[in-house]
Amino acid sequence: MRVAILAHEQFPDRAKTALGVLRYADHDIVAVLDRDSAGQRVSDFVPDVQDAPIVEGMDDLEADAVDALLIGIAPIGGDLEESWRDDIRVALENGYDVISGLHSFLSDDEEFARLAAENDCELRDVRKPPEGLTVAEGIADEVDAEVILTVGTDCSVGKMTTTMELARDARAAGHDAAVVPTGQTGIMIEGWGNPIDRVVSDFTAGAVEEMILEIGDDHDYLFVEGQGSIVHPAYSPVTLGILHGSMADKLVLCHEAGREAIHGYESFALPSIPTYIDLYESVAAPVAEGQVVAGALNTSGLADDAAASDAVAEYADALGAPADDVIRFGTDDVLEALL
Amino acid sequence: MRVAILAHEQFPDRAKTALGVLRYADHDIVAVLDRDSAGQRVSDFVPDVQDAPIVEGMDDLEADAVDALLIGIAPIGGDLEESWRDDIRVALENGYDVISGLHSFLSDDEEFARLAAENDCELRDVRKPPEGLTVAEGIADEVDAEVILTVGTDCSVGKMTTTMELARDARAAGHDAAVVPTGQTGIMIEGWGNPIDRVVSDFTAGAVEEMILEIGDDHDYLFVEGQGSIVHPAYSPVTLGILHGSMADKLVLCHEAGREAIHGYESFALPSIPTYIDLYESVAAPVAEGQVVAGALNTSGLADDAAASDAVAEYADALGAPADDVIRFGTDDVLEALL
Repeated sequence: MRVAILAHEQFPDRAKTALGVLRYADHDIVAVLDRDSAGQRVSDFVPDVQDAPIVEGMDDLEADAVDALLIGIAPIGGDLEESWRDDIRVALENGYDVISGLHSFLSDDEEFARLAAENDCELRDVRKPPEGLTVAEGIADEVDAEVILTVGTDCSVGKMTTTMELARDARAAGHDAAVVPTGQTGIMIEGWGNPIDRVVSDFTAGAVEEMILEIGDDHDYLFVEGQGSIVHPAYSPVTLGILHGSMADKLVLCHEAGREAIHGYESFALPSIPTYIDLYESVAAPVAEGQVVAGALNTSGLADDAAASDAVAEYADALGAPADDVIRFGTDDVLEALL
Repeated sequence: MRVAILAHEQFPDRAKTALGVLRYADHDIVAVLDRDSAGQRVSDFVPDVQDAPIVEGMDDLEADAVDALLIGIAPIGGDLEESWRDDIRVALENGYDVISGLHSFLSDDEEFARLAAENDCELRDVRKPPEGLTVAEGIADEVDAEVILTVGTDCSVGKMTTTMELARDARAAGHDAAVVPTGQTGIMIEGWGNPIDRVVSDFTAGAVEEMILEIGDDHDYLFVEGQGSIVHPAYSPVTLGILHGSMADKLVLCHEAGREAIHGYESFALPSIPTYIDLYESVAAPVAEGQVVAGALNTSGLADDAAASDAVAEYADALGAPADDVIRFGTDDVLEALL
């Protein structure tokens, strides 16, 4: 699929979805739209991802240049920025699909819905859960694949990135591994999945189970993208639904070096690493005996590799299991514990 | 409020909502509709709840006899039984509100919506979550009230009943106690609340927190109706959202005597009672330090009081805390541990 990514005024630092897609998706990225950086290239900002020109808007692309426009940023609140309307309109008029993870659905927008119908293209709101979800049956462990789930000490510690890195490198090493995406960026990268945080709470585990059953017999390893944290004051139900719904065999505990309190909830201190292991394993056990067998530490906040290496060693020690920063130092140690 | 309760062909044994409303609601129950038992009375079947005549249908009531018709039963699947349509139609034509906990919403039914508009009355679908829900802030512990939550070893072990019994008897003893309803029967009894199992999973804890904040400064004790179980393969996210969202001070562990496996998920054995205590307390702790201080045992499956008494003693022993069957033996022991 040939894709243009909209990231106006936010590329690259505030364009997490755009970066995830550039880094991991199997799409051909034709251009990034950012009116602040038009004329430059992705590689001028980010060295280690797919390169592409940065353009002002959809009008700068040649006819039939792409198959889809992907919204690669999210404003606070998750609503559509009206300044993006022209680009979306041009995309639809050219018959390109538009892929969005916004809270407000493009398909609910009258103009977009009309244009999509007229031009026979699709508005794909990836945060809209599919119809027909139901409660879990507790049978995800019946699939052939080994199920590996990333769990976290908090939100935004690197669960999605770790999932993608591990699956990619497992495949590179010759294993048959697939990703089970549970959030908007993961869904955009993989082209399928279910936005678990938007699912009716009764169906949280069931929505995950359904995905595991769908592809679990076709692969040797499933890497399930975790969400939130079991101790998060707001998002813990999503975390537990994925833990119980996936019936994971192995857990990878993701953490950010130096994080001491829940992000955005600073009065809630993070428990110790051994406490996390105990919580995840003991809550999982009555449904499925998943064990924390490795850790992934995000050291992007540490300036030099020596400090990062020390932090990783300390984290592995607290875990009592192999750990690494999978971006800075690679996935070898973690994959060895998993595969 | 004067209420008629629809319970066709299912009163009393398969009419859990009808019985809950008869037992606990502050409504004046004018009649129960059950075409199988018309001519008899509620007291012919259930001795210890509000009495009322059982009639064939809404046509048997005098003009302006009630303010609302309440659907007191749920068919498998939760959809409307077409054989109830006449009674609902008559209710609306008379200007009575209709209160329903069905999965399929009455307000989505074209005929009912039109009749309600024409007759200036309301279709109250209690399973429809309110608009404007959002994520928890982690501040439910700021209210003045002591927050007491019923948690369970499984679904259908008596959490709603225990919540209602405890709140009623606490009030009778002179305490200022209120219920925070989280399920359809509780909402129908109390006349407000939020069907937490229908809420978007990201907002599960937030929806509970919102209710606590709404009434928590107006009472000395809040009895929060729990749902599901922390080890349930399907419903655990709902349970955890209520645990973290309520930031409960005290927990009452509800269990049914003799239950050994998750109801409907028989391959999942229940863990030991001490394991439940450890799970609930250790998962709660990073958000709020709730302790299991009492237990409620449902002994309705045991024939005689002696066997029930033995089961209660054994349960209290396993808990290491006071416990009782609050229906069979009253709430004194449990309330003493709570208030």
